[in-house]
This record gives sequence, structure tokens and C-alpha cells, in this order.
Amino acid sequence: MKTALIQMNTYPEKRRNLENAGLRIKEAAGQGADIAVLPEMFCCEYRNRSFVANKESKGGEAWQALSAAAAENNIWVIGGSVPEEEGGKIYNTCFVFNRKGEQVARHRKMHLFDIDVKGGQRFKESDTFTAGDDITVFDTEFGRIGVVICFDIRFPELARLEAMRGAKLIFCPAAFNMTTGPAHWELTFRARAVEDQAYFAACSPARMEGSSYIAFGHSLVASPWGEVLCDAGICETVLYCDIDFDYADDIRAQLPLLSARREDVYELKLKK
Amino acid sequence: MKTALIQMNTYPEKRRNLENAGLRIKEAAGQGADIAVLPEMFCCEYRNRSFVANKESKGGEAWQALSAAAAENNIWVIGGSVPEEEGGKIYNTCFVFNRKGEQVARHRKMHLFDIDVKGGQRFKESDTFTAGDDITVFDTEFGRIGVVICFDIRFPELARLEAMRGAKLIFCPAAFNMTTGPAHWELTFRARAVEDQAYFAACSPARMEGSSYIAFGHSLVASPWGEVLCDAGICETVLYCDIDFDYADDIRAQLPLLSARREDVYELKLKK
Repeated sequence: MKTALIQMNTYPEKRRNLENAGLRIKEAAGQGADIAVLPEMFCCEYRNRSFVANKESKGGEAWQALSAAAAENNIWVIGGSVPEEEGGKIYNTCFVFNRKGEQVARHRKMHLFDIDVKGGQRFKESDTFTAGDDITVFDTEFGRIGVVICFDIRFPELARLEAMRGAKLIFCPAAFNMTTGPAHWELTFRARAVEDQAYFAACSPARMEGSSYIAFGHSLVASPWGEVLCDAGICETVLYCDIDFDYADDIRAQLPLLSARREDVYELKLKK
Repeated sequence: MKTALIQMNTYPEKRRNLENAGLRIKEAAGQGADIAVLPEMFCCEYRNRSFVANKESKGGEAWQALSAAAAENNIWVIGGSVPEEEGGKIYNTCFVFNRKGEQVARHRKMHLFDIDVKGGQRFKESDTFTAGDDITVFDTEFGRIGVVICFDIRFPELARLEAMRGAKLIFCPAAFNMTTGPAHWELTFRARAVEDQAYFAACSPARMEGSSYIAFGHSLVASPWGEVLCDAGICETVLYCDIDFDYADDIRAQLPLLSARREDVYELKLKK
């Protein structure tokens, strides 16, 4: 299975970003990719007022563009994330489309990014967004796949719950910044991959100096043994990576971690 | 608070190791250390038949030596681990002694190390040991401290439960090997430190080429921001590190992770 990480520039104009995403998905399909993933908030600036200005309901402009790109190019699309409005609330939402352009999953960011680092980043996502409540996995012809969004990855519980439900590849549209990126980006994805014995594919916007929120870039895939299989650097690009679901099984057999959890002592479960 | 990581050579002779540990604890106290930690299985070779040959009950030879070293040097001692026998079972156990030489905590390794890496390490600890069931934290004049042992660190659940109970420093006597060490040692401790926003102090035996089990070495302390504050390399040495419990609070305030867990959605808890 071949995956494409679309590390895009993101501009203030939604239509421009959607067109760019469409072209890049077509490019990825042309290169033989089975699944393409876009960055978190690929369709607008990463700031609260842009989220509000560009919000849309399921079936809206971005949703239609991604669905069409999936169907036209016969490729799975992990739709980064968009500001999704429903019932007067706004969510940071990733829609997933199969090769026919049908929505097969939807992940709403479960952990909202509120940070205030001394001398560094300050951002309060919860000013705008409502957090989602669902664990998101879906099935493909290759195997089961999970989705988390950015800050979600910092909490071992969510990816763990997806791995326990059988995910062997977890996509994470994300936009770490220039404080948290150098400190924790690669570390966190590699560590999750090792502990959950799964592939993790992180897709960031490209780094654009001078923008209101400077993303770290460095979209990457970490293997179930914790190796960084590829790293996109900081510029706009499409990064390709072969994923071998059997290798995850192999690692799980050689170094039993998931099966060695002490479920007789502790329990990690959904409350509802 | 100053901690000393005693990265010892370990020889087949138990008495030799106990004498060495005693001298090193005295050395650490002389350097002003408040807490000294020893490696996993510091008192014997790391192999199943040595565990059996050197097993002892609470109050045995190693226990007495550590208790005496703590009292004589007025220093806290995290006693690495020893093969502890009780009720016909053997545990991989860390005894913790206060400055008076009183045992204040006991951690029995909860996750036993069974591995069979192709072309690499093969070891089955569960052939000999019984796994422990307890979450181990204890209070000092500096703050609350947790203990896990080696393979335990691979499971985010255990350290998480200790952090949720207030631990801001977690000691991990450990003996990663030459397969898992280069791949996962630093990564895992740094990642736990970041996600639990606590200091992690890992203490390994020194690397001794030609021994039956070659430990990775590289005893280290990771900060709550994920930095490696010190690394002992591979030879026998005592490594010192200042620990600032207030800094853990500071990081928890700037980047709220522990408090941002979605306890309304998922639950991690002890079963008993």
C-alpha cells in the first residue's frame, strides 16, 4: 500500500487551497498512491477567526472538493481537517473518503490545543472549537486504519484505543508550531509507533515564514519499530511511503507489547 | 533535589555487587546526593538461572545491605531490583529505603520481558518471574515519586497512573539490551517524560562486553519537556542530576496535558 503525504502551503483563500489540494491528490494518484492525506486545516489560515470565516457543514465546499477528488482519481482521501459546523458548534474535523468519493469516517479533534509557553507559543483553540468524542477507525482493502488530529497525538490513550481496535496505520493531520515542533514532533510520533506497534503518518502544512501561524512541517511516517521512514522537510511537497501491514504483525509477534498489557490490573476504556 | 544514578558493573558474585553498590551509595552521599538509584538486577547476572540462584526474601542479604547504606549515609535509596522470593514465587523487585533505612515502598515489575526479535534478542523473563500488580508511588520531602522497572516503561498506562497519582519524578531501574537500547531507550524515556510532564530517571547497568547479557548503559534523566539532561555513556560511573519539582508544575501549567485528558470520554483505571 502506497500512501501520499501532501505537505501543502496554506493560503488565506479557501478556493485556492482546495484547488491546490485537488491537483496534489491527482498528482499522488498518478504516482500510484492508494491513500492521500492532507494537513490539518489545509483550507484556511491556522487562526481562530479564519476557522470561523471558513466553517462549513458536512457536504460543503471543501467536503465536495475532497469527495470529487477521491472519486475522480480512484484514491482514498484522508481529508486533513476543516472547520465543520453542526448544531451551532464548530469542530476541527477530518472527513475520510473511499475511492468512490463516499465519506466512510469522520474524526473530530478530541483534544483541543490550548498552550501558553513562556517566551513561545500561545494559542487557545477551545475559544472556537468544540471537542469531538469519537474514536475513529475504518476499514480498507489493506487493513484497518485510524485517524487522530494534531494535539490528539500527545495523549497515548486515543491512539492506544485505536490500536486496540485493530488499527495498524494511524493518520494524523497536524500543525505543530516552531515551539512544539522541534521539541516534540518526531519524538511523539516515533514513540506512539513503538508503543502501539503501528505505522503513524503525520501530515503538516508546509512551513511558510511570515504567515500568522508558522507550521513546523516535517511530515513523516514512523514505522512500528520507531524508525522515521521519510521526512518531508519544510517546503511544499508530496511525500510517498510504502506501508506494509504485515510488518506491523511481525513486530507485534517479535516484541509482544499490545498483547502484554496488564488488562487484569488496569483498564483503558471508553466511558460511553 | 540532587539524584545520583549508579551505573554499575554487575558481576556473577552477589557479595561483590553489594559491596560495590554500598561504596557507590556512600560516594553519592558524599557528593551531596539526596537520592541514589541502582540498576535493575544490580546484584547478579541478567539471566534466569542467576535470578533463581540469587533470590532472597524481604529482609535478605541485598535488602539489608541497601537499608544499611541508606541509614549510614542519610540518603534515599531506590534499590534497583533484586530477585525477591515470596510464597514460592519470584518477583523482579525494587525496594525503596528512606534516609533512616526504612523500607517505604516496593515495586514488583508489572510487565515481564518476553522478546524474540529476528536476528536479535531472545529472552523470556516469565520463565522465572511472577509479575507484580501494584502501582508504586511514595512521598519524600521533595515531592511524590514513582517507580517502574525496565519493560514497564514501554506501557504508557503504568507511568500514566503514577503521574495521575501525583508523581513528578519516576525512577526506572532498567537493563535494555543491544537490540532494544539503540532503537528505543532514549526515545521511550523522553516520550514518557513529555506525555506525563514529569522527570524520568533511568538507571542501567554499565555495558560489559562478553557478559551473558550486554546492557545498553546510557543511564539518563529526561526532563518534563523531553530534554535529556544527562547521559552516563556506557562505562561504570555515578551520574548526578538536579531535579526541580517546581519545573514540572511549570510545564504542566504552560502546556496542559495531564489536565486536558478527556476523562469524560475515556477512562484509565486500576481494576482492583
